[in-house]
Amino acid sequence: MQILYKSDPQRGALWQQWLAQHAPDIQLHLWPETGNPHEIEMLIAWQPPENMMETFPGLKALLSVGAGADQFDLSALPPDLPVVRMIEPGLTQGMVEYVTFAVLGLHRDMPRYLQQQRDARWQAHSVRPAAARRVGVMGLGELGQASLRQLVSLGFDCAGWSRTPREIEGATCFHGADRLGAFLARSDILVCLLPLTAETRGLLNHDLFRQLPAGAALVQAGRGAQLHHNDLLAALDSGQLSAAVIDVTDPEPLPSTHPFWRHPAIWLTPHIASQTQADSAAAALLENLRRYQRGEPMKGLIDRARGY
Amino acid sequence: MQILYKSDPQRGALWQQWLAQHAPDIQLHLWPETGNPHEIEMLIAWQPPENMMETFPGLKALLSVGAGADQFDLSALPPDLPVVRMIEPGLTQGMVEYVTFAVLGLHRDMPRYLQQQRDARWQAHSVRPAAARRVGVMGLGELGQASLRQLVSLGFDCAGWSRTPREIEGATCFHGADRLGAFLARSDILVCLLPLTAETRGLLNHDLFRQLPAGAALVQAGRGAQLHHNDLLAALDSGQLSAAVIDVTDPEPLPSTHPFWRHPAIWLTPHIASQTQADSAAAALLENLRRYQRGEPMKGLIDRARGY
Repeated sequence: MQILYKSDPQRGALWQQWLAQHAPDIQLHLWPETGNPHEIEMLIAWQPPENMMETFPGLKALLSVGAGADQFDLSALPPDLPVVRMIEPGLTQGMVEYVTFAVLGLHRDMPRYLQQQRDARWQAHSVRPAAARRVGVMGLGELGQASLRQLVSLGFDCAGWSRTPREIEGATCFHGADRLGAFLARSDILVCLLPLTAETRGLLNHDLFRQLPAGAALVQAGRGAQLHHNDLLAALDSGQLSAAVIDVTDPEPLPSTHPFWRHPAIWLTPHIASQTQADSAAAALLENLRRYQRGEPMKGLIDRARGY
Repeated sequence: MQILYKSDPQRGALWQQWLAQHAPDIQLHLWPETGNPHEIEMLIAWQPPENMMETFPGLKALLSVGAGADQFDLSALPPDLPVVRMIEPGLTQGMVEYVTFAVLGLHRDMPRYLQQQRDARWQAHSVRPAAARRVGVMGLGELGQASLRQLVSLGFDCAGWSRTPREIEGATCFHGADRLGAFLARSDILVCLLPLTAETRGLLNHDLFRQLPAGAALVQAGRGAQLHHNDLLAALDSGQLSAAVIDVTDPEPLPSTHPFWRHPAIWLTPHIASQTQADSAAAALLENLRRYQRGEPMKGLIDRARGY
């Protein structure tokens, strides 16, 4: 089988080497080298090339190198072309680490303590037990489920919210637009891991923030276009929100004049919450290619109607 | 039984109320009210009053309200007086949270990212999988064991070091002075949770830092007098250490001119890693008093020879 890779060249070289060793029947071409374009069955990319279907008429699927496929313009792709996002343990692990770090930091007042450090002020504040801290995770796919399980193990009072029903041991699960308000009302720390869709674009706005308990905190590790920047700043200024840890923004990178950089209650990281790990992703990719070869549905297949 | 409490009055009032409800046979006096001093069998304190044994001749034990008893001058106490430190789940949980936060923050380069934020610089750095990050916890009492278990659950390559042998699932355990070097040589992130004793005073110094892998990081949540401040600054300046999260110092509070406040590679918190939690500690205290009444050894009894 001939497949084509078009993304970070370093990872591509690693995958090429790994596949040559573990699956000699699969040949990975590294863009712009394509072999015979008519023989390419799979394209693995962050952004597909122009005229994709004309250039690669035998294409059977488009695979994203990232956890989402929202970077693709799905409406411009043939409606019957399978689009697959990356599900691999390294990506999941990275997100669990980031979310756990951010929730613990907010739970333990760390933005305030680091601000005190800058002011050379030694002052302790009272601690709330984890069991009395209500953490809510929006988006219960691979990343959300794994993050929630780690938060449960730390003793937080956990809940999750998703479009469709889920069950996660130790957490209260809400689903659907009807139950969003009830979920928000009990989230002292809200973690967004939602995919970017028409429904989630701009979702983190004034109307959502006002449904949280006063003084709640936000972890945004979903997609940049979900967050209304000015509404976040207003909620922090009014005290409706106390702090935020933000990994994704729109645009990225943020202009150096943007107020997020200097805000004392915001921790801003440059979209590093989680990255596809070359080693573990190579194995996940091969497993998915074998599924395809056996005629089984690939893992991470995008539902074109719901957009993720 | 008559017992006397001399520490934070708010917690004292909570304990008095809690014991009145759950153990009406035990009467808790709140210093300076002592009842009949001759009838006091237990003193629970951070610092005992002067002339303790003369004032309370029937005293059977001195209980610390904190995780350590190093604030007591053990040499000034009758050698046969049992001294007991606090072991309670709230204190353990707080330390697990702090250590997990600090290790994840160092693992994921967060001091560097927050420094970049101050400079309005959007730049990602590569991520190392947790399995390739060697974390070492020094001190494997209640707090160290619980912290190590949480770190194991996050997938870190974990080790522990203690004076006496321990076994912790998923972690490599070293013990004794002979094996300290081997433990240090494999600790990319070193966490100190040791008690303060004659052996651990000044232990975190140049000689120890140089045995760590180059670029290692430190979490200091033991006791202030264990850390040699100038040696830490020199190790950070030379690159032998990359970053440090420091919760305890000597003296406390640190003077506002101390270089730790402004160092870009140091996160400094004001001895807040963990605090005895009134609710859970009341139950732990009662359980220990019942042990005493039944003639069983109390939990957390200090070995006067080893000093903890």
